[in-house]
Amino acid sequence: MTNRRDRSLHAMRPILFSNHFTKHADGSVLACCGDTKVLCNTSISEGVPKFLRDQNKGWLTAEYSMLPRATHTRTDREASRGKQTGRTIEIQRLIGRSLRCAVDLHQLGEYTITIDCDVIQADGGTRTTAINGAMVSLTHALKHLQYAKKIKTDPIKYLITACSIGVIKDEVYLDLDYDEDSCADVDCNIVLTEHGDLVEIQGTAEGEPFQTQTLDKIVQLAKSSQTQILQAMRTCLDLPHPESK
Amino acid sequence: MTNRRDRSLHAMRPILFSNHFTKHADGSVLACCGDTKVLCNTSISEGVPKFLRDQNKGWLTAEYSMLPRATHTRTDREASRGKQTGRTIEIQRLIGRSLRCAVDLHQLGEYTITIDCDVIQADGGTRTTAINGAMVSLTHALKHLQYAKKIKTDPIKYLITACSIGVIKDEVYLDLDYDEDSCADVDCNIVLTEHGDLVEIQGTAEGEPFQTQTLDKIVQLAKSSQTQILQAMRTCLDLPHPESK
Amino acid sequence: MTNRRDRSLHAMRPILFSNHFTKHADGSVLACCGDTKVLCNTSISEGVPKFLRDQNKGWLTAEYSMLPRATHTRTDREASRGKQTGRTIEIQRLIGRSLRCAVDLHQLGEYTITIDCDVIQADGGTRTTAINGAMVSLTHALKHLQYAKKIKTDPIKYLITACSIGVIKDEVYLDLDYDEDSCADVDCNIVLTEHGDLVEIQGTAEGEPFQTQTLDKIVQLAKSSQTQILQAMRTCLDLPHPESK
Amino acid sequence: MTNRRDRSLHAMRPILFSNHFTKHADGSVLACCGDTKVLCNTSISEGVPKFLRDQNKGWLTAEYSMLPRATHTRTDREASRGKQTGRTIEIQRLIGRSLRCAVDLHQLGEYTITIDCDVIQADGGTRTTAINGAMVSLTHALKHLQYAKKIKTDPIKYLITACSIGVIKDEVYLDLDYDEDSCADVDCNIVLTEHGDLVEIQGTAEGEPFQTQTLDKIVQLAKSSQTQILQAMRTCLDLPHPESK
Amino acid sequence: MTNRRDRSLHAMRPILFSNHFTKHADGSVLACCGDTKVLCNTSISEGVPKFLRDQNKGWLTAEYSMLPRATHTRTDREASRGKQTGRTIEIQRLIGRSLRCAVDLHQLGEYTITIDCDVIQADGGTRTTAINGAMVSLTHALKHLQYAKKIKTDPIKYLITACSIGVIKDEVYLDLDYDEDSCADVDCNIVLTEHGDLVEIQGTAEGEPFQTQTLDKIVQLAKSSQTQILQAMRTCLDLPHPESK
Amino acid sequence: MTNRRDRSLHAMRPILFSNHFTKHADGSVLACCGDTKVLCNTSISEGVPKFLRDQNKGWLTAEYSMLPRATHTRTDREASRGKQTGRTIEIQRLIGRSLRCAVDLHQLGEYTITIDCDVIQADGGTRTTAINGAMVSLTHALKHLQYAKKIKTDPIKYLITACSIGVIKDEVYLDLDYDEDSCADVDCNIVLTEHGDLVEIQGTAEGEPFQTQTLDKIVQLAKSSQTQILQAMRTCLDLPHPESK
Repeated sequence: MTNRRDRSLHAMRPILFSNHFTKHADGSVLACCGDTKVLCNTSISEGVPKFLRDQNKGWLTAEYSMLPRATHTRTDREASRGKQTGRTIEIQRLIGRSLRCAVDLHQLGEYTITIDCDVIQADGGTRTTAINGAMVSLTHALKHLQYAKKIKTDPIKYLITACSIGVIKDEVYLDLDYDEDSCADVDCNIVLTEHGDLVEIQGTAEGEPFQTQTLDKIVQLAKSSQTQILQAMRTCLDLPHPESK
Repeated sequence: MTNRRDRSLHAMRPILFSNHFTKHADGSVLACCGDTKVLCNTSISEGVPKFLRDQNKGWLTAEYSMLPRATHTRTDREASRGKQTGRTIEIQRLIGRSLRCAVDLHQLGEYTITIDCDVIQADGGTRTTAINGAMVSLTHALKHLQYAKKIKTDPIKYLITACSIGVIKDEVYLDLDYDEDSCADVDCNIVLTEHGDLVEIQGTAEGEPFQTQTLDKIVQLAKSSQTQILQAMRTCLDLPHPESK
Repeated sequence: MTNRRDRSLHAMRPILFSNHFTKHADGSVLACCGDTKVLCNTSISEGVPKFLRDQNKGWLTAEYSMLPRATHTRTDREASRGKQTGRTIEIQRLIGRSLRCAVDLHQLGEYTITIDCDVIQADGGTRTTAINGAMVSLTHALKHLQYAKKIKTDPIKYLITACSIGVIKDEVYLDLDYDEDSCADVDCNIVLTEHGDLVEIQGTAEGEPFQTQTLDKIVQLAKSSQTQILQAMRTCLDLPHPESK
Repeated sequence: MTNRRDRSLHAMRPILFSNHFTKHADGSVLACCGDTKVLCNTSISEGVPKFLRDQNKGWLTAEYSMLPRATHTRTDREASRGKQTGRTIEIQRLIGRSLRCAVDLHQLGEYTITIDCDVIQADGGTRTTAINGAMVSLTHALKHLQYAKKIKTDPIKYLITACSIGVIKDEVYLDLDYDEDSCADVDCNIVLTEHGDLVEIQGTAEGEPFQTQTLDKIVQLAKSSQTQILQAMRTCLDLPHPESK
Repeated sequence: MTNRRDRSLHAMRPILFSNHFTKHADGSVLACCGDTKVLCNTSISEGVPKFLRDQNKGWLTAEYSMLPRATHTRTDREASRGKQTGRTIEIQRLIGRSLRCAVDLHQLGEYTITIDCDVIQADGGTRTTAINGAMVSLTHALKHLQYAKKIKTDPIKYLITACSIGVIKDEVYLDLDYDEDSCADVDCNIVLTEHGDLVEIQGTAEGEPFQTQTLDKIVQLAKSSQTQILQAMRTCLDLPHPESK
Repeated sequence: MTNRRDRSLHAMRPILFSNHFTKHADGSVLACCGDTKVLCNTSISEGVPKFLRDQNKGWLTAEYSMLPRATHTRTDREASRGKQTGRTIEIQRLIGRSLRCAVDLHQLGEYTITIDCDVIQADGGTRTTAINGAMVSLTHALKHLQYAKKIKTDPIKYLITACSIGVIKDEVYLDLDYDEDSCADVDCNIVLTEHGDLVEIQGTAEGEPFQTQTLDKIVQLAKSSQTQILQAMRTCLDLPHPESK
């Protein structure tokens, strides 16, 4: 199960961001990481929530959901159960927090951004794929806001990237798929700015605790894996790639 | 707005069913009707709900949802509001009822089928597109159940098709898109068996009531429009087309 | 069970509307159709919901509920279950939609009308009895609003009537009671204006699909059955009967 | 407002219990006390809730609700609000507790009794009218259970009666209507056995606290007012009246 | 079980109010009555609820809760169940009602007082201990409001005290602990002003009904037991004791 | 505000665990860290949730809540709002996950442990104080289970400790109080085994992202701060201190 056929332990699965996946959203990106597919739709509306009134700044929030049959066996629909699971809430808080870090909310002005991350198909790493897709979707949406002359400057401070790293039998694996994730001893999600600084780190020992040296390895692997994600992002965003500067 | 550029009043938009849209579901079909796109995933599980115990028959139910940004402006996520809207409940009851009519539940045996219809992009006719996509998705899923030797015979009695028909300024329109739907005086959804018999008819006067002669015209139009839907279904299901018999 | 003792297949059960059933409502009518008894209370309040602000028109909405022991065996109280069933929601949306069709909301002005339809005793046809009772209750309430000089003209465009029609073993039955309803192959509810035009039609094949010729028969039967309902309505409303003109 | 036109301070309004108000319930009584009208339906089902399993005794519970327009101005429907108000919960607990006191649950055996008290029209004293109506409805239902040979002996220990008593400007009033209730300084509900013993007493100072002598007067008035209620109960239950013994 | 080791039937358990139990609340009192411990925190905020707008008076409300393991066996947390139990709602309504009686809401002015009564440890009498603790906590909070010059005069009209009294095998017991409460035939909670007038009385026959003479005894016992509670209150509030006048 | 009067940047506030804080729980510990006070009650019950049936292992879960007035201004009670906030859910999932890591669930056998962490007073670090208190409370409860001969060996694998570390203006602070927490750029919670291995790490950039070197410093500080927490734990648990070995 932990035998990766066609990629090394420190390799990511193919990553692809498809723009304009649906037509109504201000930014609509299908983010694929291997077989994990997350639709990231950005909506921008005027005004801000009450707690931000008269502060002359904007707000950004995210919602996350899995389609009932995104998974091996069907999971109950949260809308018919009448509440979101703890897992869903935890993930959408993480997505929102991370993306807020990438945006200068003062520069945004009094707009509220909602990023909906809906998992169409799940195969491990849905939350990190959601963050990456949300980053691309958000950038598209803000570009349109700028084109529409509603804001003057781009409020994005830097791109952020997210990856999941696990430890299985003392080996550090990058970008675990569902089967690998199910048998990992450590499960870590790391969000970095494009400059390699930390936005968020969440590491959990599923079974055995892990040493601080392992944490170092994990963080280093996260940093070195960024290039591939940033490349896919820039391709979709039509941004110059660093090497082409 | 009611000026249809490139199709006649009695023509449908292009219809396409894409099979295997996601990998986990027993049947997974993306149903497209013009710009309306609905993902129809079928899940089959052993056992039946309590009220059917020991009756030696199966059950089929459907759930319907729109992604928050399937629409022009974002609609609140039902999972975070904590309940489904009346519209959602009404639609998913219609889908389930219609599809149950197409299946011999005794022949199915003690299995429960759940069909999830998630609207990825909405442009009018989401409920009829959901029914059509569910029909195709269900057929695929039951074929697999038969291949897997879990059931002996195909419990599907006939294909069913659904279309929406509206009346705008005394003219009868087939397959209304969102703009047309918004200004229709009568809104009618009709589900037929492939033999042209009625499974369900729901006609509503949005503004002015309509005459029974108009109802006749609507029903005739529904019957004559079936061919295109059945053709798309049979293509996706790899079934022989009647004319090729 | 389908042997109607004392009425022909195309006859309705006795219909009676009792005015002033309770003293607080603006209109309070007990609508009886055979053993089915629905209390229809109309409340009129000033102002309109948000989505209608500054449009200079009114709103009408309906709520439907069954007392827990209106039925053979007790059904759980929705208030203690914490949510309304799909059936309840579907029915109250139908009632509201139908009655809105009977009222000129612009002429009504900025008032909100709520019609509460509470089933005291159920024996088939509760939704059609509710619509009929609501029509009478609403007319009384608007008459009082006019007497009170709050509106100048009567905003009611025409009376509407509703009836249920079923198909049992290829025979078309008018106004099914509970026992008949339980074994019907087709279940159809039709709402008409007093002039015989269609406001709403909902036909469902419970088991076998039905032919369009059957739909014709159903619609014709609905039209011919109107007289009895209108007569009972006019009696309760103290309106001249057409033949007495 | 506290000027009682046609009755003395210590007189009750006319009380009437109508049996067989609806046809499905095991006991169905409309209890009227002046303009207050409460429908009390008793349902008996086999089995008991989990916490009583294998104790060889039955259970009795009550539910209370007001139709939305039972009151002067419409109150929101609890089913659509998604939860019962504190007032509703308080009242239905009182009704259940009081009635359980009147029944020998061991003698009842493993049956669960649910008494639904639905206020059709409110004019003060709905909770006491509900208790009185529930007592009559329950007695009818248990009589039928006995006729059906499901229980051997009557599990009712004694009739219970309830009345509301208030203090307005130092005067003690029996059976307050809505207007009186709105200006009462003390609001007291007392449930007694037919022998004059206390089952429940709830006295609340709405404004000014009251002296223990006043409590004495209230309790004495409650006792002396029982005759009228018991007479109405016995009439409806076809029981011999004490004086006719 | 009903054998009180170290106190007479008419004696209360030791009562103690500890002020400043937590640091953020405007008044924070831990009320102990034997092993029952309730934390009573008072919060005062500016403004009043909608229904009191422009009446130039304040409002007071209470909330009650038990920590899940305040009891012998763990009870489910209401926050995770998603609703409060009927018992909780009944109790917090009683606390709020009683305390409102002790305050001149006009003199308070447009402030809203919320008293949170959280049971840390339960051993019978939690609701009466909550009322007593709330009285002390409220007094402290209002004193601070006066010190802060936000109100000019003390809006407290009188202290109120609450005690629970039960009947076990025809004997009247003061202040029942959990074991006694479990086998009581009558359960009575009485709230009095410091002058011995009644604010609230709630008496319930758990099994056998009780005579009005018993009610007299209960009320007398309640009055005679007040001294101890008032003494503990005054000690905590640093008020002169009557005998020291 | 970030001027720590009486402790260095790398010093914790005084930590104290008080055992037997309430009498009913299997383990009841009040954990204090400066002015933050969390009551940690452990309940052990026989049996396991469904998803663990027949696996011959136990389960451990945690719930977290803040009393409404544990904070500067009152926060709404989750039980009356009808749902837990995202923050609460996130925290209680962290507590449960961390503590499960400290227990050998196979050795525990088919028992379910619930640890209730109720914040009595909040001043920063409530989640880490809850984890520490839960660790002590759990150890006490399992000791009693062993004394009661229900389990043979101690299923605790090692003590775990939690601390919060923040970055304010490039300085790393240990154990932030509320004021410090409000202005921190980075907020990190770290759970370690008593051997210094990582159980959980959650680091969030509130404003500016942080460098991986800062993460190193944070982790080192977490490790060096453990001694004080372990000492307080061992004192309360009556365990030998390492230096006294």
